[in-house]
Parts: sequence; structure tokens; C-alpha cells
Amino acid sequence: MTHRYILTLSCPDRVGIVAAVSSFIAAHGGWITEASHHADPEGRRFFMRQEIRADSLPFGVKEFRERLAPIATEFAMNWRVVDSARKKRVVILVSQLGHCLYDLLARWQAHEWEIEIPCVISNHDTHRDFVEWHGIPFHHVPVTPTTKAQAFATVAELFEAAAGDVMVLARYMQVLPPALCERYPQRIINIHHGFLPSFKGAKPYHQAYERGVKLVGATCHYVTADLDDGPIIEQDVARVDHSDEPSDLVRYGRDIEKTVLARGLGYHLDDRVLIHGRRTVVFR
Amino acid sequence: MTHRYILTLSCPDRVGIVAAVSSFIAAHGGWITEASHHADPEGRRFFMRQEIRADSLPFGVKEFRERLAPIATEFAMNWRVVDSARKKRVVILVSQLGHCLYDLLARWQAHEWEIEIPCVISNHDTHRDFVEWHGIPFHHVPVTPTTKAQAFATVAELFEAAAGDVMVLARYMQVLPPALCERYPQRIINIHHGFLPSFKGAKPYHQAYERGVKLVGATCHYVTADLDDGPIIEQDVARVDHSDEPSDLVRYGRDIEKTVLARGLGYHLDDRVLIHGRRTVVFR
Amino acid sequence: MTHRYILTLSCPDRVGIVAAVSSFIAAHGGWITEASHHADPEGRRFFMRQEIRADSLPFGVKEFRERLAPIATEFAMNWRVVDSARKKRVVILVSQLGHCLYDLLARWQAHEWEIEIPCVISNHDTHRDFVEWHGIPFHHVPVTPTTKAQAFATVAELFEAAAGDVMVLARYMQVLPPALCERYPQRIINIHHGFLPSFKGAKPYHQAYERGVKLVGATCHYVTADLDDGPIIEQDVARVDHSDEPSDLVRYGRDIEKTVLARGLGYHLDDRVLIHGRRTVVFR
Amino acid sequence: MTHRYILTLSCPDRVGIVAAVSSFIAAHGGWITEASHHADPEGRRFFMRQEIRADSLPFGVKEFRERLAPIATEFAMNWRVVDSARKKRVVILVSQLGHCLYDLLARWQAHEWEIEIPCVISNHDTHRDFVEWHGIPFHHVPVTPTTKAQAFATVAELFEAAAGDVMVLARYMQVLPPALCERYPQRIINIHHGFLPSFKGAKPYHQAYERGVKLVGATCHYVTADLDDGPIIEQDVARVDHSDEPSDLVRYGRDIEKTVLARGLGYHLDDRVLIHGRRTVVFR
Repeated sequence: MTHRYILTLSCPDRVGIVAAVSSFIAAHGGWITEASHHADPEGRRFFMRQEIRADSLPFGVKEFRERLAPIATEFAMNWRVVDSARKKRVVILVSQLGHCLYDLLARWQAHEWEIEIPCVISNHDTHRDFVEWHGIPFHHVPVTPTTKAQAFATVAELFEAAAGDVMVLARYMQVLPPALCERYPQRIINIHHGFLPSFKGAKPYHQAYERGVKLVGATCHYVTADLDDGPIIEQDVARVDHSDEPSDLVRYGRDIEKTVLARGLGYHLDDRVLIHGRRTVVFR
Repeated sequence: MTHRYILTLSCPDRVGIVAAVSSFIAAHGGWITEASHHADPEGRRFFMRQEIRADSLPFGVKEFRERLAPIATEFAMNWRVVDSARKKRVVILVSQLGHCLYDLLARWQAHEWEIEIPCVISNHDTHRDFVEWHGIPFHHVPVTPTTKAQAFATVAELFEAAAGDVMVLARYMQVLPPALCERYPQRIINIHHGFLPSFKGAKPYHQAYERGVKLVGATCHYVTADLDDGPIIEQDVARVDHSDEPSDLVRYGRDIEKTVLARGLGYHLDDRVLIHGRRTVVFR
Repeated sequence: MTHRYILTLSCPDRVGIVAAVSSFIAAHGGWITEASHHADPEGRRFFMRQEIRADSLPFGVKEFRERLAPIATEFAMNWRVVDSARKKRVVILVSQLGHCLYDLLARWQAHEWEIEIPCVISNHDTHRDFVEWHGIPFHHVPVTPTTKAQAFATVAELFEAAAGDVMVLARYMQVLPPALCERYPQRIINIHHGFLPSFKGAKPYHQAYERGVKLVGATCHYVTADLDDGPIIEQDVARVDHSDEPSDLVRYGRDIEKTVLARGLGYHLDDRVLIHGRRTVVFR
Repeated sequence: MTHRYILTLSCPDRVGIVAAVSSFIAAHGGWITEASHHADPEGRRFFMRQEIRADSLPFGVKEFRERLAPIATEFAMNWRVVDSARKKRVVILVSQLGHCLYDLLARWQAHEWEIEIPCVISNHDTHRDFVEWHGIPFHHVPVTPTTKAQAFATVAELFEAAAGDVMVLARYMQVLPPALCERYPQRIINIHHGFLPSFKGAKPYHQAYERGVKLVGATCHYVTADLDDGPIIEQDVARVDHSDEPSDLVRYGRDIEKTVLARGLGYHLDDRVLIHGRRTVVFR
């Protein structure tokens, strides 16, 4: 993969944003390999993502940021420049169901993403051997009603100690405390085993079975203090029919969960996801 | 299309149902062209649908029913034998949006279904000429808050006068009174422009936009006294992204609505839909 | 719909294209409502589409083109500026199967697209009344092996007389002569009832049935002199199984054909499709 | 999972098959939990699959077969009764790409299927540690142009020694010799990384890119002596666009391959797949 700088920004929409940014990049010989824009017609907010080849610029990421800063200030941008050479650190949380964990580690092994997995945290010891076989530290942090506060303090400490960039709840069957959610905005990603906003909360496949829906789904979203209500990154569905029992829906669902989590996480890792209120802009 | 008798039934599950029915049919030389079964593991209810070539039996539909009756009684069946030669009479209700109406008439013209359309009823006069050009009577029955009761009495009279088998709400933007819904159980089919149970009620595409979902859908269901809560016959979805405004979702949605309504209605017309509580068994 | 100018271009990729174009637009106060870029990593070709609000610019489309011309020359652009206020003229060709024709006219009636339909041309007289009821002229141009050359000369004359922008083969079951295809590059759109490149030529659903595929599809593409081999604009599929006979595939296929043709044509009408060799760039 | 006997059969279609089989089962108190039929209208062949609870019958699988044999002979059935308690033995063949292997082992670990994996065979040593960590023997059988005959003799010996029921080519990048294919009809399952019959042979994603298709797919099929031409069990597709390079298609494709292989293999393991010439009947 070519070494790139990825610029993402949002700001109030007005004339001249693209001209200012692209002229700045062109003035330094910057080679844009991918560019995406979005203007929200209602909120009048503008969103942009640019990938620039690092070797086309005469300076490094630090100086890029310094030189861009005045333009960012002029347009009141919420912005960020990411260096593709720096691997993101992904901390995985899992419970007993291992299908998403298996899938994430398989992708990591196959170099689908250039990431580090500094550790896996679980409220069960089930997957210790599998994780450790991959050379990844495994932390067993049991969660009980009485120890919940302490347990999540430990989770936060482990995440900090691991210098985690993003926390992935890969079918981690615990509700995170609101304070933890708010501490890491847009840095905690969950896979919900239902097609939100239908079937929030527990046993979504059983809810779907009871309602008799003809498609079941899964939703990858950022975690906020409002349970199952954070901005949606990706969703997908699979067809079911009357012959499918709840256990079948669970089984089909696992395949959707793996795929939807992987796609959603992939967009996040590539800095393709910008937040717009309760919604996401995903520059695929 | 071959002349067929279609037997549908449901009954408490026990040993010997299939044997009894298929032996009865075989004893009279009946040629089964399609057979479907479903046993619900929880409710212990059994569902069956059989298509038998009419010309393979030595008697007509009336005698078929008489001879089958004792078996039906023995197994406590909820059953029906339909003669494929008798065209179902489909009454269409529509408001101002004509995409589903156009689509239904196109299918009728193309003989996709062998049905009669004795009339179209609308609370607006918009589509009169188009419907009448097809040689179908058009009834304008305005609905206002004060005339609602009378209006729906008229709708019921027209449906009776037309000897309607099924009433199709093809984007008919009025809520039917509960008494009307209960009068015609499993005979009123609605297309809801949302992926139920998400986004019930008004403006589902705008609700979907606000929530930032990545797929929008439509739902074809039987109408019951509980708004948007009847048994689901068919659903489907289409992918959307951040660049789609509510008007785009409405536009994509129209295509899903047409297809989902056509598929759901088609299953109903072929007697492929059996009711199981809040769910449907659809023998596709 | 807001009055907009739509700029589309492709040119050899190099530094500064976006900067040059966006600076030009910004210098005149142009408000970009939608912008899309694509750089092909192999061919080193760059593609761009911009929508600019007409009322944000101090000049009309003619002057816009004149002022942009020097930049276009500098970068060796293949370019075009389209005025959204000018309705495109769509000439529809159809044979006996009317489902795509019905669907296109329904969309036109519902103002899904702001187009003119100056005429419909058919090798059969089947749909004359339906078309004329819509107030659209209908031309019956029979095609036989011996009259083929003359018939297509007539088709071309009618298309010219109608000042057609685009010719839509809406299940027009005749192969166009190569000379006609070459006369209107990227202006003739076909819907093929198969998932190209599988199942070219005649009876694709029967070919699909024989091969036992589990999905059938349809393909919307530009017509070139190579039968069923032009650049693909849009495709989609539907699931089938062993119980579906060729007639079922044909029936499911009709729904895919309608949707895929409508999507493909819609992209073309919005100037979202650029050609890149045998492929298309579709800025959705 | 309940202990069941699974009866699958095909025979010339005629009156009385279902009656004969279901009466036989009912006469012994057999509880049918799932029943599927299919009559091919052209070939006049009939297909059936029944699941019967083992504990509802007064005899075991051996006597079941003996008692059913006369009926099978009478109707000239091609038939089989499988005991669900006997775990199928699945031998996996893999090359260097491990995504399907990872996925299959994850499903086996999660008890999605009740199978044995007696060994994994590969022409590379890449995945030895991963396989052996799972407690599964790993055989490295290199394949070179000159050793090909000997290598596949070894593969066949290992398959025999492992008492394999089915051989799964999980992205095994070698073409099996025709003799091996013919030795194990309907017992070798391949995942092809293209939407057959498009893009047979090598580098199907690159072929798809060159042709500019808008969907890429994967195909799970039985292996026959005709390369990529065996009966198709399952297929699926994913949407792509102009911004996707061949490496992106490969990446999306991996997800489809995993899912399609798992679904296809699952149908086979449940004895849901019957062969009908070049096609399959899949009783899902």
C-alpha cells in the first residue's frame, strides 16, 4: 500500500472550500489519489476526505498539518490528517460467542488491514488459548452486577495501557457504562445482531422471529451512552422464511454480523467515516 | 396454465396427516404437481399446500371437497380447496401516488396473474382517466375527517357489489376503520413504505433518514385492526447512503414498494400464504 | 429541482486538475452542490463531475463553457457542461413485451425524471393505444429480414426528426445494425435480460435455467456494434431455485429488467455516466 | 439436535409416490419433522426429502432401510437413508489463501455443523501450525507439474485413510485430475471465485474488472471432470463500482466465497442437495 496522508474535515458549507484545500495541495505538488465530498442540503454542512500520496509532498505529516491549519481556521473546520504509515491499534472485546473474533483475527492474519491488535479483553476465559496462539495478550475481566464498575475501570485501564485507538465490541454481551462511552466518542464500535432501529436490546433474533419478519439484519454502529442508538456505520440483511426457527436466524445472523462488522470497522480504519449528528457520512 | 385444485390446510400436528391426505389423493389418481409442508416445532401446528391437476381426478371441485371433508374433520383441519379456473377479483384502493397502481395494471395487462379487477376506488379523482382507459370502473370516494365513517361504508358496499375477493391498498393513504379490517380478515393487503416493525405510521422514509439507516425497505402485510402490525407477507430493502436525501429514499422506495407488493399479492393470489398467529407461512 | 449546470470531464491525470477547476468555479462564486472524482490508477486517467447552482454564477451556460474552455484545453479534457433546465429527449423502442414501456411511462407521468418523450417506435403495433393515450406519438416500423436496412433507416430518421438525445431499447427484440450503433455512441441504452457477460444472445433465461444458476440477472448497457458487449451501466440479480421453471425466471426477470433499466437510464439522464474504455464510471 | 433419519430419493414421477412413502412412515408411527418435494415438469422426475424423528420409529436405521427397500424398488428410486447421529467426515484442501479455512474451522469450533475434520491437506505448508493447533492432522502434499499424478494419488490415499465423506476445495488452487473427480461424484465441493458461468478459469476477479461488471460473485459447486462446470449448489454476489480496483474485488470476493462455501457445504452436510443432470435440487 502506498504511503498516504488522509485529510478528513467538516465545516459550515460556503463557496471556496474545495478551491482553497485543493489549491493548497496542488501548490505543493500533492497528488490526490482519492477525493470525496458531501454537502448536506439542510444542515448546510460540508464534508470532505482526501487521500494524498506522501511522496508527492515536500514535507511530512507534521508540517502538512501546520501549513493547513490557517485554512482550517478560516473555514472553521473540524479536521484531521492521518498518516497511513501509522498502524491503528484495535482492542477487541468479546464474550463467549467467538465467530466475530475468529473473523477479525483471520482478516488481521491475511493482512486485510494494516493494524495492531495489542490485546483482547473478555468477560470469559473461553478464547484465551486461541488468542494467545496468535501471539496476542488476552485479559480475562469478569463482569458481575456487583463488580461492574470496577470491571469497566479495568477495561479502560487496559485500553489506555494498550494505547488503543479503537475498541471493537465483537459480540461483547455487556452494556458499557455511559461514562465509558462518553470518554471515547467515535472510538467504540459495536456489532448489534438486529436491524436497528428494530429489535433493540436483548435477543433481537427472537424478537424478529416473533414478529415474523422476512429479513433479519445486523448493524455496526458507534457506541454512545444511548443503548443501540449510536450513529450507524453499516447494515445488512439476510432473507428468512417461515421454516426458520430462532436458532436458524441466529445462525444466518452470525454471517451477517461478521461481514457487517468487518465492513464497518474497515471504513473506520480507513478514516472513511465522519459524524453528522445521529448520522454518519461514509466515503466508501 | 394447467387447471389445478389447490388444497391448503393447517391443523394440530400429529402422525399420519400427510399419509391420510396423499393416500386420499392417490386413491383417486390425483397428480400432485406441487407440495409443501411446514411443521411449527413450538406451536405443534402443521401446514400443508398441495396443487393437484384437475384433469387427473375423476370428479370436480365440489365433490373433491365433499370427499375430503371427513379427513379434514378427523384431523381438525382449517382447510380450503380453491379452483384455479376461478379468477380472483382484486379491488384496488389508491390515493394520489400512482406507481403501485401503474405497476399492478401493467401486470394485469401482461397476464402475469389471471385475475379480474372489477373496480378501482380512490379518495382522489387523479387516476380516473388512466383506470377507465383500461376499461375498469373507477369510484371516487372522498375521505374527510367528518365523512370518514360514511366513506368507508361506501368502500365496503363497493367491495361487496364488486364481489371482491381481496382488497389491495396500493399506497392508499388512509387508515381503515378497525371494523372494516375485522370484517375481511386476510383479505386486505397493504404495502407499507417502511421496513416494519421499524418506522410505523407516517413518513417512514423521513424517519429512516433521521435515524441514518443504511438500508430502506417496504413491507407487504395483511391489514388488521392494529395499524402496521398485521402478519407480514413479504419485505425487501434497498441500500442508501449519506448522499441520499429523503426525496431520494422516497424514490428508491417506490421501486421496492412495487416489487414487494407484487410479490406479496402474487403469493396471496396463488393461495401460498397461511396465517400462523402474527406470522405467515408462505409456500413459495 | 434547483437549476444547475453539470460539468463532466475526463483527462490524463496530473497534479492540479481539481485545484484549477474548483478555483475557477469559486472565483465566480459558484456553489458546488455535488462533486465526484475518480482517478484510474492504471490508465492514469482522471474523471470528474460537478453540479453547480446556476443562480450562484454571474453568467449563463454559454459563457460558462467559453470561460472554462482554456482550462479544458490546458488539461486536454474531454468535457461537457449540461444545463439541467433543458429536458432530455428520450425515444423509446419496444417490441411486444410491454413491462419496461409501462414502467418508463409511469416514471415519466410521476415526474421521476424531467424528460420529454417525443415518440415511441415499435416493430409491432401492440402498444399504440396505450402510448397514444399518454399523448405520445407512436410509430410502427415493422422489421423483417428483407426490410431490415430500410426499417432502421426509418428508425434513424424518426430519431433525428424527434431531436432525440437518447434511444432506449426497452425490450426491443431486434439487433441494431452496427452502423446505427456507431452513429450514436453512448446514446443508445439497452436492457439485456441476462447477467452479462453470462448468457449473451437469445433466450438468456432459458440458458440460465439449463445451467442451473441460483441467481438470474439483468444488465443495462450502452449499445455498441458488438452485440451485448457494450459498457455496462447497471446490473442486478434475483434469487431463484430448483422449483423455478424458465417461465418463472422470465417473470422474476421482468422485475429486475424494469428496475435495472430505470436505474441505468436515470444515471445517464443525470449525466452521471462517463466512459472509460469498455467500462463505465458511474458517479451515483 | 434431535436424532433423525433423513430420507432422500428421486424417481420417475407418477401417481402415488408420496402416498406410498408417507403411509409407510405413518404406519410405523414415524414423526416427520420436515418434508420437501419437487417434481420436474420436463424430465418427469420426482425428488423428495423427509426428516423423521428416530425416536418415533420402533426400529433403527438398518431396519428402516430394509423395510423401505421394496417401495424403493417398486418406484425405481435412487434413494438413501442417512442417520443424523453419524458425523460426516470432511477433508479440507487448501493452498496459501486461508480465509475459507479459517472460516470453516471457526464454524466447526462453534458447532455450527456436527462434523469430524479428520485432516487438512495442502500443497503448501503455510497453515500447518494453525490447523495443528486445532488438533487436526495436517498433510503437506506439494504439487508440481511433474509430480502432479503422484501428488493426487497421495491425496486420494489420505482421503481414503481418513474415511472422508466429502472433500472440500477451500480455495485449493489446483485443478484435480478428471479421474479423481469421477471417483468421487458429488463428494467433492469447490468454491469458485466468480459468478459461473461467467469468468471460468484463472483470475476471475481480474476478468470481471476488465469487463466492468457491477456485481462480482462466487459459486459453490460439485466438482466434475469439466472444469468449473459441475452442478451449482449455491451462488451469491456483491456490488462493486468503478472505484474498485481488482484488489478490492478480491477483498470483497473473499467474504462472498466464505459465505457461499459455508452455505453450500451446509446444504450438502444436511443431505439437502440432490442432483438432476447439470442442475441441483436444494431443499433449503
